[in-house]
Amino acid sequence: MKWSRKDLLGIQELDGDEINLILDTAESFIEVSTREIKKVPTLRGKTVINLFYEASTRTRTSFEIAGKRLSADTINIAASTSSVVKGETLIDTAKNLEAMNPDLIVIRHSAAGAPHLLAGRLRQPIINAGDGAHEHPTQALLDLMTIRAKKGRIEGLKVAIVGDIAHSRVARSNIFALTKMGATVSVAGPATMLPRDIERLGVAAYSRIDAAIGDADVVMMLRIQTEREKHNIFPSLREYAQRFSLNARNIELARPDCIIMHPGPMNRGVEISPDMADGPRSVILDQVTNGVAVRMALLYLLTGGNES
Amino acid sequence: MKWSRKDLLGIQELDGDEINLILDTAESFIEVSTREIKKVPTLRGKTVINLFYEASTRTRTSFEIAGKRLSADTINIAASTSSVVKGETLIDTAKNLEAMNPDLIVIRHSAAGAPHLLAGRLRQPIINAGDGAHEHPTQALLDLMTIRAKKGRIEGLKVAIVGDIAHSRVARSNIFALTKMGATVSVAGPATMLPRDIERLGVAAYSRIDAAIGDADVVMMLRIQTEREKHNIFPSLREYAQRFSLNARNIELARPDCIIMHPGPMNRGVEISPDMADGPRSVILDQVTNGVAVRMALLYLLTGGNES
Amino acid sequence: MKWSRKDLLGIQELDGDEINLILDTAESFIEVSTREIKKVPTLRGKTVINLFYEASTRTRTSFEIAGKRLSADTINIAASTSSVVKGETLIDTAKNLEAMNPDLIVIRHSAAGAPHLLAGRLRQPIINAGDGAHEHPTQALLDLMTIRAKKGRIEGLKVAIVGDIAHSRVARSNIFALTKMGATVSVAGPATMLPRDIERLGVAAYSRIDAAIGDADVVMMLRIQTEREKHNIFPSLREYAQRFSLNARNIELARPDCIIMHPGPMNRGVEISPDMADGPRSVILDQVTNGVAVRMALLYLLTGGNES
Repeated sequence: MKWSRKDLLGIQELDGDEINLILDTAESFIEVSTREIKKVPTLRGKTVINLFYEASTRTRTSFEIAGKRLSADTINIAASTSSVVKGETLIDTAKNLEAMNPDLIVIRHSAAGAPHLLAGRLRQPIINAGDGAHEHPTQALLDLMTIRAKKGRIEGLKVAIVGDIAHSRVARSNIFALTKMGATVSVAGPATMLPRDIERLGVAAYSRIDAAIGDADVVMMLRIQTEREKHNIFPSLREYAQRFSLNARNIELARPDCIIMHPGPMNRGVEISPDMADGPRSVILDQVTNGVAVRMALLYLLTGGNES
Repeated sequence: MKWSRKDLLGIQELDGDEINLILDTAESFIEVSTREIKKVPTLRGKTVINLFYEASTRTRTSFEIAGKRLSADTINIAASTSSVVKGETLIDTAKNLEAMNPDLIVIRHSAAGAPHLLAGRLRQPIINAGDGAHEHPTQALLDLMTIRAKKGRIEGLKVAIVGDIAHSRVARSNIFALTKMGATVSVAGPATMLPRDIERLGVAAYSRIDAAIGDADVVMMLRIQTEREKHNIFPSLREYAQRFSLNARNIELARPDCIIMHPGPMNRGVEISPDMADGPRSVILDQVTNGVAVRMALLYLLTGGNES
Repeated sequence: MKWSRKDLLGIQELDGDEINLILDTAESFIEVSTREIKKVPTLRGKTVINLFYEASTRTRTSFEIAGKRLSADTINIAASTSSVVKGETLIDTAKNLEAMNPDLIVIRHSAAGAPHLLAGRLRQPIINAGDGAHEHPTQALLDLMTIRAKKGRIEGLKVAIVGDIAHSRVARSNIFALTKMGATVSVAGPATMLPRDIERLGVAAYSRIDAAIGDADVVMMLRIQTEREKHNIFPSLREYAQRFSLNARNIELARPDCIIMHPGPMNRGVEISPDMADGPRSVILDQVTNGVAVRMALLYLLTGGNES
């Protein structure tokens, strides 16, 4: 199969074959990062721009390492410290970058739809590295890759996602990805953190973590935006932790061979207890390792790597 | 002809032959950015430092891409987040960088003359990437390159520059460059934005845009520093736009085949209307593309590229 | 001799043979930075992460240039603008970086012991680029290298260190390094800037600069943290300068062939007078040049360069 899309904007528009192609390509790249010389010449002479309108360590670093291991020239733009300050529109900034002939642009933006806006206007491939509360497709792909590597399959698994479902682009992209690949998804969170009509996405919603994680093969905890506390979205971090934290007691409700995931950064003691984060079921750091491989795969596919 | 200057500090000291050498060299580099593999080994093993004391997306990115496409190692220093905070003098910072044996230093600084100060003290070539309200020579050179590419020549053209002439390093460098190359320059702006004695630079000054752009081959709009509004340099953005914005009506005063330029970032609806910015006469994005080529040419020439 | 440590955390744990190996290796790298093509393929395909929790120009730039001249891929993380903001623990941040398979991590942190914490938890080599008021080992090594190059030896020299000894990681690392290598160290500073029990480190302590620098072969001035003035650690900058600044008068107390050092950034007119900083005895910029070589040596040794 050949990759045919110009951009990677979200999981919602991908089909299962496309997702499998990305995962298979990523698996072929995982070995590069374990070599003595962690570099292949695939993207030599290509320019990849990381345009980040939100602060990020892990995602930006992951894309930068992915680019460099493919021998691309990587350019980081932290937009908060750039001429965006001067009031230029997003499209004008992007058209300017386009005019410098990069080969691909990775964008993270606080506004849902920003990558789509660019994709429709620029000739270069665009990768969405997170747009508002909309999608974070590379996160979902690295999550799928991790599940597939650990469980041998995705179809038929039961996956529980716990936390602030309503405001999480990670949750949205994962719900799309998991249901497309045949997994059963249940979610749990306080009422203020569950979107109305969540069931329309094909998932079962619960108001208690215990109900969601029963017999789960995969338990995916979401980061709580602790800065939201002051907006009264939930009563208190302590109360949240009491009701929704993953811990040694409630993990017993999941399958004995379940795996524990978290997109990071973690609030230890809030959404996840330290023994769960660091215990034998945790695959949280595998997710990070797979993230580099998924991003290498996408840089490769979107710059035409498997066309010939 | 061989390049013989150590530094590129301003247009004012260049002669026409030097300007033509830069433009010819830049044209030979424009093709590199359109290749499948956008990289030549010219500056392999050279270190280029981008020392930016003012925030910038396009200029810093343009220099960084130019360096990487020549295979240089590029080092970015955003001086506002560096030990400059600790009170070190500019010269001490620069002498420290010199001691690390870079091959060239690009500097942007809010103080006019900062690059000249460094040029006199460091053995490395210095490129002025904008110094206060003094000069922005690489901008003027990419503007000349764009005019020459679109019009086939510079000599004999009529160029109108509109906006805050008094506080614009872009205007100053362009006035020097255009008059040296034989173009006729007229400028327009509010009285508070026109320097006294502006005519001594060999340009005609007008208080209305209509007077300046009559029969112009090139209309160059300047960015309004909207943050100046509160200092009462001009009455209001709305009034400014009414009197000095380029729009579908007043463009009819220029020559039918005129080109529209802007150094960016644009304030759409203030100094330029969107239909002018995006219309068929606009060469604003060509300017950006040519900027990478001009900077490649300067990195090449100043590191001794055409000496042998 | 082979290098056998995983990490470079401080001078305190090194022995003389290890220090000499680093200095000898650094001397072999100094020539690379003077070549036409300043690059060797030693670390091609290796990833070096510069994780800086404190702002820094010279140290970060020095490590970045060192990495690039060895052909490593270098990744800069300015932690103050990263997800550290989101409350992630240092160890979680570091474990995430580890999972991306870098080959070495350089860390600067305001907390003493932060590099040691990481070294015990990560499989990658860690280099301490400054931890609180604890150690700054690469600074001490470049200082030793500079002394050895200028004086031909370290053993038997008299070295005076003047300034805020109590709060300076530079002073601590240099005291460890110099006494290990057989130099005699005297220190001077206001009573509030001398640690109690300073003599236990094997140095002589004085409350006047004149007493410390008598017959010194090396005078090492420390940067005064001028921001401390308001905390009443010393009465005023003017008074400090009068009592502890190195100047044309008190330098006469040192040996005629003494050398003057400063780790930078300098407060000219506070701890050092401009004629001393820029005069013939100053080796301050040699320190910077040697810093790149020392860091190249450490990147080389810690990634296994001299194992075979």
